[in-house]
Amino acid sequence: MSVPIPDAVSATPKIIDNSNPPQFLIDALKHHGSPPPETRPHVTLTFAQSLDAKIAGARGRQLILSGTESMRMTHWMRTLHDAILVGVRTAINDDPQLNVRHLPPPPPNAPPHALPRPIIVDTHLRLPLTCKLLRNFQAHTGRRPWVLCIPHSTSDIAFADRRRALEAAGARVVDVKDPRTSDAEGMARVSAAALLQTLRELGVKSLMVEGGARIIGSFLAERDVVDALIITVAPVLVGEAGVGYDYPTTAAGDGALVPRFRAVHTEIVGNDAVVVLLPPAEP
Amino acid sequence: MSVPIPDAVSATPKIIDNSNPPQFLIDALKHHGSPPPETRPHVTLTFAQSLDAKIAGARGRQLILSGTESMRMTHWMRTLHDAILVGVRTAINDDPQLNVRHLPPPPPNAPPHALPRPIIVDTHLRLPLTCKLLRNFQAHTGRRPWVLCIPHSTSDIAFADRRRALEAAGARVVDVKDPRTSDAEGMARVSAAALLQTLRELGVKSLMVEGGARIIGSFLAERDVVDALIITVAPVLVGEAGVGYDYPTTAAGDGALVPRFRAVHTEIVGNDAVVVLLPPAEP
Repeated sequence: MSVPIPDAVSATPKIIDNSNPPQFLIDALKHHGSPPPETRPHVTLTFAQSLDAKIAGARGRQLILSGTESMRMTHWMRTLHDAILVGVRTAINDDPQLNVRHLPPPPPNAPPHALPRPIIVDTHLRLPLTCKLLRNFQAHTGRRPWVLCIPHSTSDIAFADRRRALEAAGARVVDVKDPRTSDAEGMARVSAAALLQTLRELGVKSLMVEGGARIIGSFLAERDVVDALIITVAPVLVGEAGVGYDYPTTAAGDGALVPRFRAVHTEIVGNDAVVVLLPPAEP
Repeated sequence: MSVPIPDAVSATPKIIDNSNPPQFLIDALKHHGSPPPETRPHVTLTFAQSLDAKIAGARGRQLILSGTESMRMTHWMRTLHDAILVGVRTAINDDPQLNVRHLPPPPPNAPPHALPRPIIVDTHLRLPLTCKLLRNFQAHTGRRPWVLCIPHSTSDIAFADRRRALEAAGARVVDVKDPRTSDAEGMARVSAAALLQTLRELGVKSLMVEGGARIIGSFLAERDVVDALIITVAPVLVGEAGVGYDYPTTAAGDGALVPRFRAVHTEIVGNDAVVVLLPPAEP
């Protein structure tokens, strides 16, 4: 009982190799080698959470949960996808850049790291014109953001104005076809399936979905649309004021839970645990 | 991208050494080498949870979350404590034995593994007379369970009857002194501090608290009573029907969260991630 307890995390943090994506990520995205289905891109759902499964602070405020190493892991993941999708609440609260700036420069004569397309699900076009995604595009340091909305009546002048302003700022505004137009609270909402169909038709072959809570919930609620679920668990407790995510429970006839995913790998990345889950094997 | 994805967890599961407690556990419980405070035993709060922070299924039904290796780790933890505490809901739903049966036999001529005292927090004495804890005691395979309750009026005949029946079945029924007698919903409830004072006076020097949700919540709510928090995260999602636990958020003046614990170690044990948290270092 005489071994000292260190002040910091005592497990040797695993540093993600600077020059290549970590192998477990390559393994998890192996299906990218095959064409996606007709109805959707390959989909990776990924987020960082606390031990108590919170992904944001009180009232949706951004929490920096993952450490340096798992942040870099996330940027490797980004460069392995055509596009990254977030909800407009996350775009407003976090003002993310969705780029790959934490990656090391590529070797001499190698092409730059692929930069994914930023996609914002924004039913009513609330994305601020001053957001970093638009500013990076204007400064030629980011790709043109696509903003996915629900078609509004032509008599909705304010909506048409917001659309014109977003387009003037550089966004491509896309109407989602056949969206489901209301959720349990009667609010207009785009289903994951409709989003994915639209993106597939626009040529997106691989999509990384980063959050926030609503988006995570709607992707977990939809069956058979997530090819890989990669969760970074930071060793902190946020508490009841934090924002969690919902996951619809599926029960068999006997009440036992039916897992929608199976864990294939857990890796300690820095101080975080990264868990890779895939859909259940075919019966 | 040609590396095959294994069907099962690909990280080599770490098998806990059969003959000794894992070192990270010994490190985490180093404070057991010093006497506990006057007001309470050394307290280890520990539980297994899913990725989405559920500790039980719908309506409190037991979930077997942790794997074989982390179960054995938990039994090593048990033998390092004088007593194990659970709430009566857990005692009813799970009918646990709280013993160390998953440990290998000790070496020849070595003493048997220390068996912790089972303690049930049972405000109104609802513990079933047929529970395994009482049956194991009657069969001389378990220690006498202590049942901690709130003193009831002598005119409460039904309570007195239940007390006599539990005592006849072998339980030691203990009145908790100075309990806080109501929670937010006005229900009678024992505070963690009052429980701990009572147990300390009864000679318990080290206590492992295993759950369930209410007990975890009340120990997390109380300041400065948990010396080590050890959470086993199983790589599964339970969903919104599962039972989570509450953790009171503490915010500083600027709204930033004040962590009550700091992570010192994360270990992959079998397919699970075990995270060890300690109180923040002294300022």
